[in-house]
Amino acid sequence: MSFAVKQKSKNSKARRGELKVPHGVIQTPFFMPIATKAAVKTLSSADMEKLNAQILLSNTYHLYLRPGMDVIDTYKGLHNFMSWQKPILTDSGGYQVFSLSKMRKITEEGAEFASHIDGSRHMLTPELSMKVQQVLGSDIVMAFDECTPPDYTEDQLEESIARTTRWAKRCKEAFEHNIDTSNNPQAKLFGINQGATNEYRRIAHAEELVKIGFDGYAIGGLSVGEPFDKACKIVEALDRVLPEDKPRYFMGGAKPHEIVAYVKLGVDMMDCVIPTRNARHGLMYRFVHDDLNKEDFYETVHVTNEKFSKDEKPLLRSRGVIETGFDEELERYTLGYVRHLFTVDEMLAYRLVTLINVRFYLELMERIRNSIEFDRL
Amino acid sequence: MSFAVKQKSKNSKARRGELKVPHGVIQTPFFMPIATKAAVKTLSSADMEKLNAQILLSNTYHLYLRPGMDVIDTYKGLHNFMSWQKPILTDSGGYQVFSLSKMRKITEEGAEFASHIDGSRHMLTPELSMKVQQVLGSDIVMAFDECTPPDYTEDQLEESIARTTRWAKRCKEAFEHNIDTSNNPQAKLFGINQGATNEYRRIAHAEELVKIGFDGYAIGGLSVGEPFDKACKIVEALDRVLPEDKPRYFMGGAKPHEIVAYVKLGVDMMDCVIPTRNARHGLMYRFVHDDLNKEDFYETVHVTNEKFSKDEKPLLRSRGVIETGFDEELERYTLGYVRHLFTVDEMLAYRLVTLINVRFYLELMERIRNSIEFDRL
Repeated sequence: MSFAVKQKSKNSKARRGELKVPHGVIQTPFFMPIATKAAVKTLSSADMEKLNAQILLSNTYHLYLRPGMDVIDTYKGLHNFMSWQKPILTDSGGYQVFSLSKMRKITEEGAEFASHIDGSRHMLTPELSMKVQQVLGSDIVMAFDECTPPDYTEDQLEESIARTTRWAKRCKEAFEHNIDTSNNPQAKLFGINQGATNEYRRIAHAEELVKIGFDGYAIGGLSVGEPFDKACKIVEALDRVLPEDKPRYFMGGAKPHEIVAYVKLGVDMMDCVIPTRNARHGLMYRFVHDDLNKEDFYETVHVTNEKFSKDEKPLLRSRGVIETGFDEELERYTLGYVRHLFTVDEMLAYRLVTLINVRFYLELMERIRNSIEFDRL
Repeated sequence: MSFAVKQKSKNSKARRGELKVPHGVIQTPFFMPIATKAAVKTLSSADMEKLNAQILLSNTYHLYLRPGMDVIDTYKGLHNFMSWQKPILTDSGGYQVFSLSKMRKITEEGAEFASHIDGSRHMLTPELSMKVQQVLGSDIVMAFDECTPPDYTEDQLEESIARTTRWAKRCKEAFEHNIDTSNNPQAKLFGINQGATNEYRRIAHAEELVKIGFDGYAIGGLSVGEPFDKACKIVEALDRVLPEDKPRYFMGGAKPHEIVAYVKLGVDMMDCVIPTRNARHGLMYRFVHDDLNKEDFYETVHVTNEKFSKDEKPLLRSRGVIETGFDEELERYTLGYVRHLFTVDEMLAYRLVTLINVRFYLELMERIRNSIEFDRL
């Protein structure tokens, strides 16, 4: 059994469990910091170990273009390439094809796209996405799907979802076919649910995915501008269809209070660029109080604000419920110093606030796991 | 006695000693990594501790403009502001006024300049330079001098040097006058020798400085485009004038083999942006053999070169004669991975090669100190 639910909350659908993948056992629910191009921006793999991150997410589309699969295969996969021997999840590449490339053309075969770097033409198919992720040696491989754009007509939406189902089948076949040549033969394969904001379509599609059978189920296409309450409704609706004994992954963007909400609806896994991207703009997260059930349990601080120029309080105010190898360092620097580093554009500024924000998200998950264990969520 | 020469080489003028300043005892000869704006680019103060750097150099001009002295004074000096409790040397601001500002006008009073940031007008005088460095709480304060430009006529040169002498006197007076209000009352004050490439003028100016009397003597204006052999001749000539019992500081730019040459001519202190600036362009230093007397004891490696794309050798090939808190991490990442990080413009690339290069320069100084002790230099 690779996924075990150890405890269920009495007050919500939240669940506390363990997910076993080839590179380790992950405590759920968990959050995945994003190592887009084989590095969490400004941080190293050793840094992520010091932060006690359990797993990283990396992007198939980016790594496929650079450094390319011949390079990754030389190192026998991404784990060795980036010197990170804990779990890795890779996305399918589909989302970036749709969001980054200048040109894209969807056919039954796959998605043709022009590289955002040099305009070169590529064709990403379910089979190629599996091949690439298996060369990467990812622990959790994501099926290749179409993230449906908001401007699709009902007909286009229906066609897209049906195609994503057919692609999901091809993914499973290709994934199994490649196992002997994979850089991570024991990898897990997750299906991705689509259907825009239509609950009926979402459920119908999830039923199709469950029929095919995956090691876990992701809910895609809900962090691309859809309203939060709508996303919650869909996650709630899917609870009736998704198997209880498989992990559920809400893909992409979530603010801290949204993460709590999704966990309460039964979600086990999340990822987001928010902590790292906002860090580079000087936006810092910190806890205000302990009750995750109240949305105001955290606040954001714009450390670039002039009011902090002489602030002598430390960047990390409280270690809270976790310990990391950076705590002592983050307690040394004052807000005034970090504000100065932003003002004069020192890279160290981005690094320090990235550490703070990744630490915040990791602590949030620890608080969530503790809260479930004590039936406080 | 704040400076003690412990051993002199039998084969050159090289000397091995200790320099005591308020924040610690520094083993000489030493190299100062540059923390221009209160941070060594890409690195933190904790990182510099892990590298065992003995002292940092920071720039008065930059810190005077941003964050400004009111901010620094809130923290009672630069040591607290940047959380670095080991020694700091600050330059006088003169060099940056001459190299960075769009406008500059030298009068007997000082140097009027326009900020390179916002064009605002400022007047830097010997008295203000002392005041600023004493608010910074620097351990080694540098006298305010004019770094003579190469296009000066003989008359202009003579006038400039005479003015630098008068400024040196004013610096000493102001420095002593401010001691009670300084953030580092036990700080040392160094004079700066000028005179372009004219040995006669250099010696005459050094004699004037020695008459005034400083805790140490710097040789300025020789790393701004002057040929290396000419610089060596001047350092050699100054040996007859500079007191043996005071530290000698060759200011600015020096490649590794030049550092060895200056040490052999009796220099105790150096600084340079080379290791940090080149790192950000992917230029890496490493040792080739142990004999520092041969110029080819090191090599440079352009890690961005395509030939490294599949290289599985570690970034740090050998720990050599020192140990730092980053050695294990720098042995984890391969040249191929770091080359990739440069290709995709990840900040981590700049950080990793900065660590390698600062480590190289610090190891070079340790090798130099060992070589002097064993009469191998």
